[in-house]
Amino acid sequence: MCHSDLHAVEALAPGAEPLVPGHEFVGEVAAVGADVTRFRVGDPVAVGNVVDSCGVCAACLDHRETYCEELPTTTYGGVDRHDGSTTRGAYSTEYVVREAFVYHLPAGPGPRRRGTPHVRGRHDVRPAAAGGRRRGDRVGVVGLGGLGHLAVRFAAALGAHVTVFTTSADKVRAARDLGADAVVVSTDEAAMRAAGPLDLVVDTASAQHDRSPYLRTLRLGGELVVLSTAGRYDLEPMALLGRTMTLSAGAGTVRTQEMLDFCAAHGIVADVEVLPLAEVGTAFARLAKNDVRYRFVLDVAGRAAAWRS
Amino acid sequence: MCHSDLHAVEALAPGAEPLVPGHEFVGEVAAVGADVTRFRVGDPVAVGNVVDSCGVCAACLDHRETYCEELPTTTYGGVDRHDGSTTRGAYSTEYVVREAFVYHLPAGPGPRRRGTPHVRGRHDVRPAAAGGRRRGDRVGVVGLGGLGHLAVRFAAALGAHVTVFTTSADKVRAARDLGADAVVVSTDEAAMRAAGPLDLVVDTASAQHDRSPYLRTLRLGGELVVLSTAGRYDLEPMALLGRTMTLSAGAGTVRTQEMLDFCAAHGIVADVEVLPLAEVGTAFARLAKNDVRYRFVLDVAGRAAAWRS
Repeated sequence: MCHSDLHAVEALAPGAEPLVPGHEFVGEVAAVGADVTRFRVGDPVAVGNVVDSCGVCAACLDHRETYCEELPTTTYGGVDRHDGSTTRGAYSTEYVVREAFVYHLPAGPGPRRRGTPHVRGRHDVRPAAAGGRRRGDRVGVVGLGGLGHLAVRFAAALGAHVTVFTTSADKVRAARDLGADAVVVSTDEAAMRAAGPLDLVVDTASAQHDRSPYLRTLRLGGELVVLSTAGRYDLEPMALLGRTMTLSAGAGTVRTQEMLDFCAAHGIVADVEVLPLAEVGTAFARLAKNDVRYRFVLDVAGRAAAWRS
Repeated sequence: MCHSDLHAVEALAPGAEPLVPGHEFVGEVAAVGADVTRFRVGDPVAVGNVVDSCGVCAACLDHRETYCEELPTTTYGGVDRHDGSTTRGAYSTEYVVREAFVYHLPAGPGPRRRGTPHVRGRHDVRPAAAGGRRRGDRVGVVGLGGLGHLAVRFAAALGAHVTVFTTSADKVRAARDLGADAVVVSTDEAAMRAAGPLDLVVDTASAQHDRSPYLRTLRLGGELVVLSTAGRYDLEPMALLGRTMTLSAGAGTVRTQEMLDFCAAHGIVADVEVLPLAEVGTAFARLAKNDVRYRFVLDVAGRAAAWRS
């Protein structure tokens, strides 16, 4: 489950077409079409937030389908490119999808946990940290939620020196346990001024906030990669001096599979709380209060008990 | 003369230390110190907006002195690194400066015009357009003032396909005369949507404005380089999707000299209006109304008549 699911449900107008949320899920292949070559029935697989794209624009040819110039088809609430129907998401027992947008789940620490890193990884955390990065680079992570806690694990696994920025002094311990080398409480202005210089900051915080202080922690030529579109970006100009800022739509198909393999190789898992589908209401209510460490997973197929074994 | 001179004078508090504006000038070497090796008396030279820096930080070692981590010494209103006095600018008959921050003026179309490209070039227009750029790249220029008109000439000389964005329909002809391949009036929303995709946009407009529409003209991975710090940057998040934005402080010493040599080799000159120093009041009044095509030059030494010959 993602905060964006909650936003989508809350934004539903009265009388609107029913919505089936869920843009990231794991499961097992139940059937394959005649032309499918990469999967067999029974394969453990994952699907992310994009399930189709035009396939011919520069972004798609570069395997960056999340940036498709004709817009990619989202896993739910999108328009199916073949029959024009509205796509319905992962809060369901079956999903039909093109094989190009399905990922193999490599063997990992068990099905319960191995699915979820995929989810977070789609947000370019790993490619952004890896692209041109070297061991010893200094990486900052803003926010310690569903995305942030995995960003810390990725960056640490990549050999970076990791600084976590959090609004909550009570998350300092958790950040260190995840692998952070330094933790800065963002309301501490002196600590903010002393932070850095960093090569890369990945801002995973979903609430609207001023990015200028994080830009200032970057070295000359450093990059701020933002993952949330909440509000507008209201920046102090001088904070951008000699630094760059971008919004990431996440990795495309090739890098997402690379990221999943990287997770398996490095034992990177998400910390999740699994609830049965019947408790989706409870999950939404707690999600609205940020009462989760760090993600809810809905057990649609009723197999969570087996996973725990 | 630069708009920033006007802002600095207007911002002077009553009783404040007197200010001598002028952060970019050309002249002739009148005297050299014993250790000066690159200049001789009589050499035609130029000086830009930075006249000293720490010399030992990463930015300085990379010849990007405008980004000095201890802040560079500005040509006026800065603090002299040797005696602590306030630097005084180019509206004067003499200037004492370290040779590392002085540029040779290569032979060009005459002293009256050859000085001014230096001025504009310091804003990274040429390096930004040249860094990793190839002939045939698509470059946008926002604004057609002192900086913008030279950015168009630079980009055209570099072999780029140049799109000019202007608020004034009556500047379309001027933009084409400067070398623009396309001109978009930025209030024309349909034309804005149809513009691009561009590889690079250089935003030279000094007034506060929304940069989101220019970000949207960029291709995936394209860059917006902003040269003005007026107001805050208030951006629509999705406009930054897969694109980057940065604020440029201009080129350092090595690239500024390269840029001047490039100007000489390609016959790039600024269009300026030369006024005697006594008419500085008139110049400020007209500057406040943007009544200049494209820059005022103050003739401090009374030599403009000779240049015109």
